[in-house]
Amino acid sequence: MKIYGDGISGNCLKVKWVCDVLALPYEWIEVDILKGESRTHEFLKLNAGGQVPTVVLDDGRALAQSNAIIRYLARGSDLIPTDAYDAARMDEWLFWEQYSHEPYIAVCRFQVKYQGKPASELDPEKIKRGYAALARMEHQLAASRYLVGERFSLADVALLAYTRLAHEGGFHLDGYASLRRWIGEAERSLGLPPAR
Amino acid sequence: MKIYGDGISGNCLKVKWVCDVLALPYEWIEVDILKGESRTHEFLKLNAGGQVPTVVLDDGRALAQSNAIIRYLARGSDLIPTDAYDAARMDEWLFWEQYSHEPYIAVCRFQVKYQGKPASELDPEKIKRGYAALARMEHQLAASRYLVGERFSLADVALLAYTRLAHEGGFHLDGYASLRRWIGEAERSLGLPPAR
Repeated sequence: MKIYGDGISGNCLKVKWVCDVLALPYEWIEVDILKGESRTHEFLKLNAGGQVPTVVLDDGRALAQSNAIIRYLARGSDLIPTDAYDAARMDEWLFWEQYSHEPYIAVCRFQVKYQGKPASELDPEKIKRGYAALARMEHQLAASRYLVGERFSLADVALLAYTRLAHEGGFHLDGYASLRRWIGEAERSLGLPPAR
Repeated sequence: MKIYGDGISGNCLKVKWVCDVLALPYEWIEVDILKGESRTHEFLKLNAGGQVPTVVLDDGRALAQSNAIIRYLARGSDLIPTDAYDAARMDEWLFWEQYSHEPYIAVCRFQVKYQGKPASELDPEKIKRGYAALARMEHQLAASRYLVGERFSLADVALLAYTRLAHEGGFHLDGYASLRRWIGEAERSLGLPPAR
């Protein structure tokens, strides 16, 4: 399998982490989004939307969308709850991540760290919604060890990707004790060094 | 099962359609988002994020996020491909819908139809990205009958919800022949009258 990804993208790292923790072999092909490498004619043939990550399976078929990819790669593993309702709760977090978390937490980080925007000039609405997302996670993680009960799942993989880097976008996690506890546990579950 | 939903919301209608086509019994509880009924203390106890749709299963457990709900309700049915790769392609469309389609197509429609904004005053970036989403669908639907090959799936349910109402947000589908063909077929698959 080939993973076309950019190492600065949490969405891409989700796929790498799942492969690493499940010992799935892959070749990582770096696609530098800042240099426009996801918009070349060659890349658009793989993914008409020009989005990383995109994986190409051994049979040559492509798949995109980070959460769809990890859901596919982790099928049948401990990363997906066997109980149908728990799996649905995991999916709830995966969809919520893309709609209510990533557009604020990841986008603020991208603008500050890679586009050089001072944190003070970020869109206040994005900051507000970013903190709302963090508060939602804190609320859950004060009640359960992981996002879906007591077992580590893809919900934790997906949410960890940008939450552990939220400070790079100017977000302060000081008041989010359960969230900080969870970041450490989720990083250890994936064998990652602490992001900060 | 109880479905808390607003009849003007495509996200909520996805859940209704899946129940109707699979003959799953439910009670529909109308939550008027324009009147703030998804922000009441009572509703926030069901869904801390204040989002519709939210379903409450017969055992009292709640579930949110339209695409997570329909994935749960349709498990084991013909609406989810049995082939793992085809199911992953379906998931790819579901995640893409929430990130690259709904924030433009549905939001423009909401602003024009329910907030009274003239189409000429919509954010040009949202219009541009909305048309990019429609073009991406057209590209696929020129090559296959449905979004995932020749079989109707949840990908079609999820994308139909707001695509069939895109005109209400000022989008013109004149140049999208395959998309218009697909809208009609998907509506017939769900037993819906044409949206226009």
